[in-house]
Amino acid sequence: MHSPLLEQLIQSLRCLPGVGPKSAQRMAIYLLERNRSGAARLSDTLALALDNIGRCEQCRALTEEVRCRICSNPARNKSILCVVGSPADLYAIEQAGSYQGLYFVLSGHLSPIDGIGPDDIGINELMTLLQQNPVEEVILANNPNVEGDATAYYIAGLLKDQNLVISRIAHGVPVGGELEYVDGGTLSHAFNGRQLLR
Amino acid sequence: MHSPLLEQLIQSLRCLPGVGPKSAQRMAIYLLERNRSGAARLSDTLALALDNIGRCEQCRALTEEVRCRICSNPARNKSILCVVGSPADLYAIEQAGSYQGLYFVLSGHLSPIDGIGPDDIGINELMTLLQQNPVEEVILANNPNVEGDATAYYIAGLLKDQNLVISRIAHGVPVGGELEYVDGGTLSHAFNGRQLLR
Repeated sequence: MHSPLLEQLIQSLRCLPGVGPKSAQRMAIYLLERNRSGAARLSDTLALALDNIGRCEQCRALTEEVRCRICSNPARNKSILCVVGSPADLYAIEQAGSYQGLYFVLSGHLSPIDGIGPDDIGINELMTLLQQNPVEEVILANNPNVEGDATAYYIAGLLKDQNLVISRIAHGVPVGGELEYVDGGTLSHAFNGRQLLR
Repeated sequence: MHSPLLEQLIQSLRCLPGVGPKSAQRMAIYLLERNRSGAARLSDTLALALDNIGRCEQCRALTEEVRCRICSNPARNKSILCVVGSPADLYAIEQAGSYQGLYFVLSGHLSPIDGIGPDDIGINELMTLLQQNPVEEVILANNPNVEGDATAYYIAGLLKDQNLVISRIAHGVPVGGELEYVDGGTLSHAFNGRQLLR
């Protein structure tokens, strides 16, 4: 039905997350009919990014430099390290704007059922970094789900003999949410982690 | 927050229809972290498609050949021409599988409010084609909305002195739908266009 090259383009667009056959066809037609300059820019930038963007040698965030802008920023507090599960989590924390320490980006979380162990997500590199650059506190900001919790507890276990503070970001009710719609697990965490007002 | 090249990639991905800043960031991270081979294939295919895919000289469908596979297929019925508003509409009709004639693909529909007139959507080329390759019937399959109807009536007006059948695809209740949820305009069309059973 499609010409062979158009079909190939539609199949290539399906490598994008969340893009099925209908969206891929819509994207291909839109790019070819309406936005050829945008498509050319996308093709070039993608090739350039693949050639140049790698991981920061220190925190493993995505960057085209040897060391990312956060790790090489002298204004950041080098005594706190925040461990996250993906670059997207790092950007979310940066966007919130309140954290001023350094990061370490794991490649996802432990998931024995999928065969993903400590070596696969970069925990060895984290341990090496902590030996070479000792910090005062490690904040475990892994996702608040089973895999994230398991990864956080695993890292806490590895670090328990070292002389540093290990913390986990708080679980509780999201700001602006309504209690009525919060799930039971979150509510239990919110009660267990309640803060004294006076 | 993002490295400059990563930011550039995220901006480039936003040229895709339906992709906002969050989806673009998700796509960029996914491609760089999880699917570099897919991303490289996408970059190459996109460049190849932009260089090679143009419009069929006869029906204006997207193709890398001079004349598309439908126009150059001797088995198609050359006495019927179906006019559609975009290549996606052509693919939808082909997928339905019941139409065996030729097509002509307009670039959208008339929309005087947006400054889109007959010259902009290819109606001149349609008239030239019909002069050079006379047909017995023109089926106007423009979208069933205000712009599509206006375009269909405009084309019908241009062709009224020629000796050919001009038809418009039927408006009515969609197959598999429930009357309860069909809008009033569609129901009126369904009643006006009712078919005699005997």
